[in-house]
Formats: sequence, structure tokens, C-alpha cells
Amino acid sequence: MCDLLRINTDRGTMLSDGKSRFSKDGKPIYHFLGTSTFSEYTVCHVGSVAKINPAAPLEKVCVLSCGICTGFGATVNVAKPKKGSSVAIFGLGAVGLAAAEGARVSGAARIIGVDLNSNRFEEAKKFGVNEFVNPKDHNKPVQEVIAEMTDGGVDRSVECTGSVQAMISAFECVHDGWGVAVLVGVPSKDDAFKTHPVNFLNERTLKGTFYGNYKPRSDLPGVVEMYMNKELEVDKFITHSVPFAEINKAFDLMLSGQSIRCIIRMED
Amino acid sequence: MCDLLRINTDRGTMLSDGKSRFSKDGKPIYHFLGTSTFSEYTVCHVGSVAKINPAAPLEKVCVLSCGICTGFGATVNVAKPKKGSSVAIFGLGAVGLAAAEGARVSGAARIIGVDLNSNRFEEAKKFGVNEFVNPKDHNKPVQEVIAEMTDGGVDRSVECTGSVQAMISAFECVHDGWGVAVLVGVPSKDDAFKTHPVNFLNERTLKGTFYGNYKPRSDLPGVVEMYMNKELEVDKFITHSVPFAEINKAFDLMLSGQSIRCIIRMED
Repeated sequence: MCDLLRINTDRGTMLSDGKSRFSKDGKPIYHFLGTSTFSEYTVCHVGSVAKINPAAPLEKVCVLSCGICTGFGATVNVAKPKKGSSVAIFGLGAVGLAAAEGARVSGAARIIGVDLNSNRFEEAKKFGVNEFVNPKDHNKPVQEVIAEMTDGGVDRSVECTGSVQAMISAFECVHDGWGVAVLVGVPSKDDAFKTHPVNFLNERTLKGTFYGNYKPRSDLPGVVEMYMNKELEVDKFITHSVPFAEINKAFDLMLSGQSIRCIIRMED
Repeated sequence: MCDLLRINTDRGTMLSDGKSRFSKDGKPIYHFLGTSTFSEYTVCHVGSVAKINPAAPLEKVCVLSCGICTGFGATVNVAKPKKGSSVAIFGLGAVGLAAAEGARVSGAARIIGVDLNSNRFEEAKKFGVNEFVNPKDHNKPVQEVIAEMTDGGVDRSVECTGSVQAMISAFECVHDGWGVAVLVGVPSKDDAFKTHPVNFLNERTLKGTFYGNYKPRSDLPGVVEMYMNKELEVDKFITHSVPFAEINKAFDLMLSGQSIRCIIRMED
């Protein structure tokens, strides 16, 4: 990971002079995550810019940003499920659906979606999820439910919720001897990951990932190529589209869980 | 891992009939760990027997058993340090020294030994350990001491103590982005591994291992070959040798920490 740009990103200013390039009524507007989109023109550090295939439709591939790359990369770059294997996905929001898409593209045979909201299950089928567990439907820990479904545990799990309890379940639901659990969700500051260490002794692996282990500048063009080659399906992530003037509608759709990704059109 | 033999090992009886092959005064003596050594003849399940190079000196290669293979394999099979990298070893008992030997054989440049007993440091130099930290000498967590020594953390760490606090330190002392921590020690039943999950988010990996990930039957002959080819040094692990009649002396040497490995000679 690039310490230089991460620090700059946190600061919200440009690296060269520590200043912002935006202002309103004389007050600075800070840069968000090094890209500062939602403007027609922007100023980015060169490390935040990647050149992609010019034939790629920008109104589609713009969703190949933080959330989708994080989930997709967590599966294809970190969990790396083998063809025919079993994968549990914790959380079926946009990141979890992208993780499921990664499992589908990898050829996983069983993709088990875990979510507290069963309304998400139908949509998740489009992303390859073919079995579903709602922890609320069971009176034992979800890791035990999954262990019973899979004769001891799944080959891989990907946690996309940010809930520390889901992180523990995701680790404890993988199979002894070869299971790999990948933590994607951003935890709260006060959370503690607790598990009995004998779970490690039994040859399990726990990995974390940031941005799906993609290096944006060098790796994003390849993700766009996967879309152009029809391996990675992007359109199904885009459930809504609104003009910029209605951007608050997009926030409502996101916060109410109705949208997976809503495109903001700068011009209508 | 082989469920079949592990269950049998725990039972202390043969798999075929659930009975023991040893007795004294009519009372059964149960099989220990599937091998039941300390007898001139023994009965083992075929899965517990490996054929090694007949030229190998048995009074040396007998130490290539649980402890040494566990530590050595934890480094060479699981942590896999690259040439020139940095490795922290937690616990400089026999397992930790074997882990250090694995780091030495792998070509690690910095091998940092961590132990609460500074008397172990001199001996550890023979196993390639070239820097030492006694947590008692510092008034901050050992992971912070190591992070300062190594500009952010070691490339690999191997925990060989069984202390859950050492496990947490071993995980927290590896570098963000690529660090791998391997847990070898057998924890207590009530221990809980606790860490802030953001440590995973920063692309660290935590792995457990059992018996250094060696499959005894298929892999042990290759470890013996490493000794025969003078890659893996075995003699330095053998600090004492006693005849069978003085076996209790060997236990004293072990419990007092004076021996690394003491050979029990069945005939003198």
C-alpha cells in the first residue's frame, strides 16, 4: 500500500503544497479520497489516475470503483476460490454482491449468501449466489449452520459487513486444513476480533484486504478489460440512474437499501 | 489433516479393533500419539510409519519429530520468508529454534528472537537468530519495539510459545500490506485471540499450522534428505543423551530448560 497517497487522501489536500484545489465563497473544499468527483472537472494526484480502454463506456465502468473492486478483488485476488469450491459471502450489499460475482467468475460451485435481510436473496441470485442463510432463521451460530451444510466448513469465506460478529463467524465457518477467510468490512474503532486460537492451529488462514488488493493505477485497466471481454458483468450492479440535480434521491436509494449502484448523470 | 488417524491417536488404541497392543500386569497401556515409542518394539498404524533413507543415523534423525518439524515447517512451509527478509520468532525453546533454523535455511537476513528468558539468547545464535528482544526490558508492547526496529514491522513472524499474548504480539508486529504471522503454539482452552480487526484490513495474513503443515508419511523422508544434504542442521538440537534407565534425568533436563533435545538411548 502506498503510504504517500494514503496520508494525502486522509488530509484532503494535494501532496505538492498541502492545499485544496476547490473552494466555495473563499472557503476551501477538501478533496475526497484523492479523486474529488461530483464535479465536471477535478484535480487529482497522478497516482490517483489510471488510463483505461477508451472504448469503455464511462457511465458503466464508473461503478468499478471502491466498493465493487473491493468485493470482487477480495474474492479473485485474496480468497482465490478454486473451480468447483464452496464460498460463503457475509453481507449481500454492493460489496458482498461483487464478492459473489468474483466467486461466480472463479467457477465456485456453491456460493452461500449470508444476510440478516432475506429480501436481498432474490437479487443476489443474479450474482451467482445459489444458497442462502439468514442467521435469524436459526437458533445456533451461523458458522455451525454452514459447517453442517458443507460437511465441516466452506473452502473460502468473504466478510463484507463490517460487523465484528460476522468477521468471527466468517473465520469460524471455513474448513480446517485449508479454509481461507477474507475480511473486507471496515470495523468500528472499538471492535475486538475474538476467536479461540485453536481455530488457527487447525491450519486455517485469515486474511484482510484493502481495496481488494488492487493497485488502482496498474490494476484497474485490467478490471475494465474483464468487463470489455464480458467476464465480469457490470450492468447488473447498476439499478438506478439520476441526474445530478436529484443527487439526494440517490442517497435516499442507497440509505434505504433499494439501490445497489445508482449512477449520477452530470448532464441530462 | 487426516481425521481418521487423529481420532485414533486421541483414543490411544488401534484403529482396526479399538484395542491397545500393550499391557502391564493385565492392564492395557494405551498408545501415545499413534507411535508408542520408548519400547524396543512397537505396533503402529501404517499411516504412522514413514520409510526414510536407510543411511540416515537414527540416533540423530529421531529428533525430526513433532517439535522440530513443527517449528521448521511453520517457517519453510507456512511463513515462507523470502531471501533477505526479516523474521521474528516468539519463544526460543526447541520449536522456536527450529523455526529460526527454517528462517536461516530460507535465507532470512534478520532473525529477531523474542523470549522472556535472556539466557536463551546465546544458544539461539547457533540457529541463525541475530537480534534479540526480551519484552521485560521494554515498557511498551513488544510489537511496538519490533515495529521501531524494522521500519513498520517484520515481513514474517512465527509464534512458538502457546501464550495468547505472544500470539497477538506476533500478529501485530508484522508489516501492513504483506506481513504474514504464523501461530504454532498450542493455546489454552480458555484463551481468546483478540485484535483490532483493522489489523486485518491492512492486508496482513494470519495463519495457523499443525505439525508445520507436513504430512508425516509423505513429507518426513524429504526432511531427512535435507539433513543428509547438510541443509538442515540437526546435531545442534541434541544437547544431551542418556540411557533409558536414566530417562527421568531427561525429563529433569527438559523441565528445567537445560536441554533442547535429549536423546534416550534404548541400549547403552
